[in-house]
Amino acid sequence: MTKKVKTAITPTREEDYPEWYQQVVKAADMAERSPVRGCMVIKPWGYTLWENIQREMDAMFKATGVKNAYFPLFIPLSFLEKEAEHVEGFAKECAVVTHHRLEKGPEGGLVPGGKLTEPLVVRPTSETIIGESFSRWVNSYRDLPLLINQWANVVRWEMRTRIFLRTSEFLWQEGHTAHSTAQEAVTRTRLMLDVYARMAEEFLALPVIRGSKSAAERFPGAVDTQCIEAMMQDRKALQAGTSHFLGQNFAKASNIRFQTTEETEEFAWTTSWGASTRLIGGLIMTHGDDDGLAMPPRVTPVHVVLLPIIHKPEDRQAVMDYCDSLARTLREKMYHQRQMVVEIDDRDIGGARGWEWIKKGVPLRIEIGPRDIAKDALFVARRDKSHRDKTTIARQQFIDQVGPILDEIQVALFQKALSYRETHTHLIDDKGAFYDFFTPRNTTKPEIHGGFALSHWCGNASCEAKIKEDLTVTIRCLPFDAPQEDGRCICCGAPSNSRVVFAKAY
Amino acid sequence: MTKKVKTAITPTREEDYPEWYQQVVKAADMAERSPVRGCMVIKPWGYTLWENIQREMDAMFKATGVKNAYFPLFIPLSFLEKEAEHVEGFAKECAVVTHHRLEKGPEGGLVPGGKLTEPLVVRPTSETIIGESFSRWVNSYRDLPLLINQWANVVRWEMRTRIFLRTSEFLWQEGHTAHSTAQEAVTRTRLMLDVYARMAEEFLALPVIRGSKSAAERFPGAVDTQCIEAMMQDRKALQAGTSHFLGQNFAKASNIRFQTTEETEEFAWTTSWGASTRLIGGLIMTHGDDDGLAMPPRVTPVHVVLLPIIHKPEDRQAVMDYCDSLARTLREKMYHQRQMVVEIDDRDIGGARGWEWIKKGVPLRIEIGPRDIAKDALFVARRDKSHRDKTTIARQQFIDQVGPILDEIQVALFQKALSYRETHTHLIDDKGAFYDFFTPRNTTKPEIHGGFALSHWCGNASCEAKIKEDLTVTIRCLPFDAPQEDGRCICCGAPSNSRVVFAKAY
Repeated sequence: MTKKVKTAITPTREEDYPEWYQQVVKAADMAERSPVRGCMVIKPWGYTLWENIQREMDAMFKATGVKNAYFPLFIPLSFLEKEAEHVEGFAKECAVVTHHRLEKGPEGGLVPGGKLTEPLVVRPTSETIIGESFSRWVNSYRDLPLLINQWANVVRWEMRTRIFLRTSEFLWQEGHTAHSTAQEAVTRTRLMLDVYARMAEEFLALPVIRGSKSAAERFPGAVDTQCIEAMMQDRKALQAGTSHFLGQNFAKASNIRFQTTEETEEFAWTTSWGASTRLIGGLIMTHGDDDGLAMPPRVTPVHVVLLPIIHKPEDRQAVMDYCDSLARTLREKMYHQRQMVVEIDDRDIGGARGWEWIKKGVPLRIEIGPRDIAKDALFVARRDKSHRDKTTIARQQFIDQVGPILDEIQVALFQKALSYRETHTHLIDDKGAFYDFFTPRNTTKPEIHGGFALSHWCGNASCEAKIKEDLTVTIRCLPFDAPQEDGRCICCGAPSNSRVVFAKAY
Repeated sequence: MTKKVKTAITPTREEDYPEWYQQVVKAADMAERSPVRGCMVIKPWGYTLWENIQREMDAMFKATGVKNAYFPLFIPLSFLEKEAEHVEGFAKECAVVTHHRLEKGPEGGLVPGGKLTEPLVVRPTSETIIGESFSRWVNSYRDLPLLINQWANVVRWEMRTRIFLRTSEFLWQEGHTAHSTAQEAVTRTRLMLDVYARMAEEFLALPVIRGSKSAAERFPGAVDTQCIEAMMQDRKALQAGTSHFLGQNFAKASNIRFQTTEETEEFAWTTSWGASTRLIGGLIMTHGDDDGLAMPPRVTPVHVVLLPIIHKPEDRQAVMDYCDSLARTLREKMYHQRQMVVEIDDRDIGGARGWEWIKKGVPLRIEIGPRDIAKDALFVARRDKSHRDKTTIARQQFIDQVGPILDEIQVALFQKALSYRETHTHLIDDKGAFYDFFTPRNTTKPEIHGGFALSHWCGNASCEAKIKEDLTVTIRCLPFDAPQEDGRCICCGAPSNSRVVFAKAY
């Protein structure tokens, strides 16, 4: 038996993955459960990450012509009912406002008063309320395409919640577009999915598979739901963004019509697409290790932390001056169009100080003491390497190289995640092997097993349902890049001409 | 009688100020009423303005050490009840969530189901829910000051709503801080008020008066409420931002305690401060004229619009090339740390095109036709001047001068608003004159009359209440810069040593 290495996070991923996740969130000071059922408080370290994600995504949206707007939080019940599948999909998890004031109750305490004639639903998503606006904004083909996004909070009353991954309230963006042709809407659906994929891969360092959902997994009311799927370190899938081609379903429900160039009247073709604070959960579960979080440099709240090493009071001034000067120099540098963020942490709390920044996942930690200053060199640790692996780099060389070093860390995180996914993705053609793959009794680590199975599926909903019932495994997507290949359905053996991704999922 | 000049907005400010306001909002395509009672839809032109306001304020907050976070939308009723004045202040206008799903009702339609054991209030403000977090985050003096802000939507169920000024849901930021001493909290209260004043004056070009509210006008639960007050063009006051010193009231209600350096335990001293989409209403009502909105250059969504003048198809290519090249050059320039935003509008819709941009308030409009190109000159119109007042400027000169010209417009808007306020601010010491000043029968323009009266007040709530009842005039603030001066209360004649600002208000 190997000696157990002490880790900053207890338990480790192997010991108890779900609990490890909660402990990483806590140790990195990202967020906490709130006393309000199922809701979370996003703390500054988590929120700054969200701000960075928002800024990058927002710029990508705007580069495709999208403009931001804001629509009401409340949706009249009658609006939600306009699209039958849609209301069916959300009815079980709606927060409903029924009163508009508080008044003295019979026992003296305050109780709801002023009953509303029509209940209002707190938006679980905004297709129906935005559709109402679109029906007024769109009159002619000249008004199309209409490309709108909103950054907002939404509420879906979840019974089993997990911070960032599934909470009753979460933050997201939802884009809504209307077009004059089906083809243009289909193109937009894919364009926005590609924006999400780029966000995931280039910024969050999350390798993703792009594809379409099976009919059973579609957004309620959509014709096609496209998604990006990432593999977490327990080998489960996380859906990290979705883009829906809604056909004319919501246009009909909301009466979004336009006059064509031929002066006929038609319903518009619409899309919607969303990504949420769930991305943060995916980032944690992908890049975290048993010492805590690792932040991808392109979205990290802080790029470099300087840790002055002061053993004697008489060294203090010189060390702090050196740190201040270095911080100033670094802060003037740009890293991917963002000014570099540098913190100096001179708290006198011993070894806990360095560990705090490891747990928070800051890409570069630099210790600076009198000996380093004498050599005009820096003692640099990278979060993508072991916490014991520190290198001395001449100050000027570090200043010149800090951008490329951060890029190296960004790439290393992506590559590590990609190779993890590749290791745990298997072509499976045998039903028994498929069932074994997803059955925890075959492993000593019940929390971490399986992965992505690339297997054939006949397209039949009953096979999909059977596998879901037997194994709690779902079809994550029909990948866009799946090659044409003859095979037989992993469930019923009927012919199939391409593989889909099966996995357990969040 | 002078001939009536045709204006882009009907009615004019003089004819019907409230309706003029609605028409400016509509003509500028800023926002619209939503089918949800009292809520608004903020359209892209209005939302981009809000994004610009957010970006500037957010940077100012962060420069003072504030960090952003996010807290739940829902507040348990019991939390709101912790501070007696606070719940009293908001009870009449709360949206209350009582159910967490929809289910089939006896008549077949959907009805609220899954009754909550404790009703949840949609946050009207977040002191109590943030206080709960603070009580866990603050343990020692080392954790202080704690400086947190959140950008969020809030709901106050208003019976009489007006777009941007008073809506049931609105967007805002709310800052919440905790300190170890009263003095430090008082200093922070004023610091954040000064941030709002800077935002109003330097960015929105709104001159404001800074001061404290009277006890009757304080935020429910505050020890001191400080505010900035601006004068609109109907001479009514608009409160454009508030900063509250909360003493230990909310710390006691939420149990926010800390261990002092002397190892005793004390309640923290807290502040809160907020500004909202109401600022947009203030901007419109201050800078709008009978032709629509005028955008201050520092927050405008678009700085310059280029209007190609193409009478003959054969000119099209040359004119568009010239416009594209000019737009590229201008877009590379910075204006107050923001890349210049330039639009080219080549729609073939005649005179309506120029008027649309006037109504939207874009600072600079440039017409470019073959004759201008031949001279390499631009035909430039400024929104702060008459729409007929256009000047020819050599292209290169314009490129070199565009920043200073925008600054001139920014200053001109501020100066115009300041001189309007000064013209309609009066020292009034006679009770009869005071009552006349605020009584519409003495004017042919019932909507636009009065202004700010700087008058003495004895400090007695009953005098304040009498004036409010008689005239619907309130004390807007006790200005910080009011000189010490002996006088007599405008209502009861008792001695007073400084003047306060009386006005009708939004």
